[in-house]
Amino acid sequence: MGKVKADISMSLDGYIAGPNAGPEQPLGEGGERLHQWVYRLESWREQHGLEGGEASRDSEIQEEAFRNVGAVLMGRRMFDEGEEPWGDNPPFHVPVFVLTHNPREKLVKEGGTTFTFVSDGIESGLRQAREAAGERDIAIAGGASAIQQYLKAGLLDEIQIHLAPVLLGAGNRLFDGFNDEHIELERLRVVDSPTVTHLKYRVCERA
Amino acid sequence: MGKVKADISMSLDGYIAGPNAGPEQPLGEGGERLHQWVYRLESWREQHGLEGGEASRDSEIQEEAFRNVGAVLMGRRMFDEGEEPWGDNPPFHVPVFVLTHNPREKLVKEGGTTFTFVSDGIESGLRQAREAAGERDIAIAGGASAIQQYLKAGLLDEIQIHLAPVLLGAGNRLFDGFNDEHIELERLRVVDSPTVTHLKYRVCERA
Repeated sequence: MGKVKADISMSLDGYIAGPNAGPEQPLGEGGERLHQWVYRLESWREQHGLEGGEASRDSEIQEEAFRNVGAVLMGRRMFDEGEEPWGDNPPFHVPVFVLTHNPREKLVKEGGTTFTFVSDGIESGLRQAREAAGERDIAIAGGASAIQQYLKAGLLDEIQIHLAPVLLGAGNRLFDGFNDEHIELERLRVVDSPTVTHLKYRVCERA
Repeated sequence: MGKVKADISMSLDGYIAGPNAGPEQPLGEGGERLHQWVYRLESWREQHGLEGGEASRDSEIQEEAFRNVGAVLMGRRMFDEGEEPWGDNPPFHVPVFVLTHNPREKLVKEGGTTFTFVSDGIESGLRQAREAAGERDIAIAGGASAIQQYLKAGLLDEIQIHLAPVLLGAGNRLFDGFNDEHIELERLRVVDSPTVTHLKYRVCERA
């Protein structure tokens, strides 16, 4: 059975988007500073249908995050904000399950990406993603709320944080409202480059 | 002229103390989990008058944080909470300047530690610490509020975060209330071990 994992860029002060995020500005004010490390990479450019880019350890790590992924889970807001910029050939190329309160019909895009809307909870979303993924991994793509829900429910196996040397000061925090959950992590790997530090943790059983 | 620097242990969710910190429990609930990495180290034990311990890269880094320090600055709450546990021979062994609203007489302890109470602002505290330190560095020992004030005022040169693979869920956040400051950091060094990741940044000029 594949792992359930999340890969996400975060500022040193814990934000995954700046303030006033919305359809016009999905990453919020200053939020693009979190992702500066990724745009120049060969692996990211290839995933988005672009040529060239930097072939580095950062590029390998970005590629690795998607390598064995057989299905993606995401929150509804992430879908709403991404749908237009992703265009006809979104960068997922696997079945994507969108957690929502409003059921709607499946969307089939080019390049292997489909969007299935799940309105009966995160466990159902995960079950459907597992079926689609087979032996491969399941990526929780975001946003913060989707990752928090799977982490709190004890359903997340691994989390990799791409820590940007940036202070955003406000916005959406990745870790919020975790009172009393006492989640234990085990560091699996740390890789750093001048523009980002990749922190990979296994989520352990509760204390 | 020496550097102004801060060295502090932080949880992955950004806390430097757990909830309900107070004189009885200076690190708050669960806050000792942030410092597990340090108690077993040779350098920490030596600093606290104890023998033995682990001679590792973590130990070197902990020792390095104090090596060239000629004076320490701290907030009043940290002093209040530390005074008793630190005892007659506190672990600083240099002049310490305590930021407070209530002036009081200088305290002279054993082993080279003195506590001078500064009630006319953080710039005055830094000026007095610089005089005491000469060419050596100045350490902002904490708490979060003291570090925040020096960082916001553009007076901090370096910050090293000892990132513990722990989620505290609540407590005192190191980075809070930084709206609009747009502080830029430059990663100087990342060192990791199974129990902690040391992230060292230079604080750059404002954008």
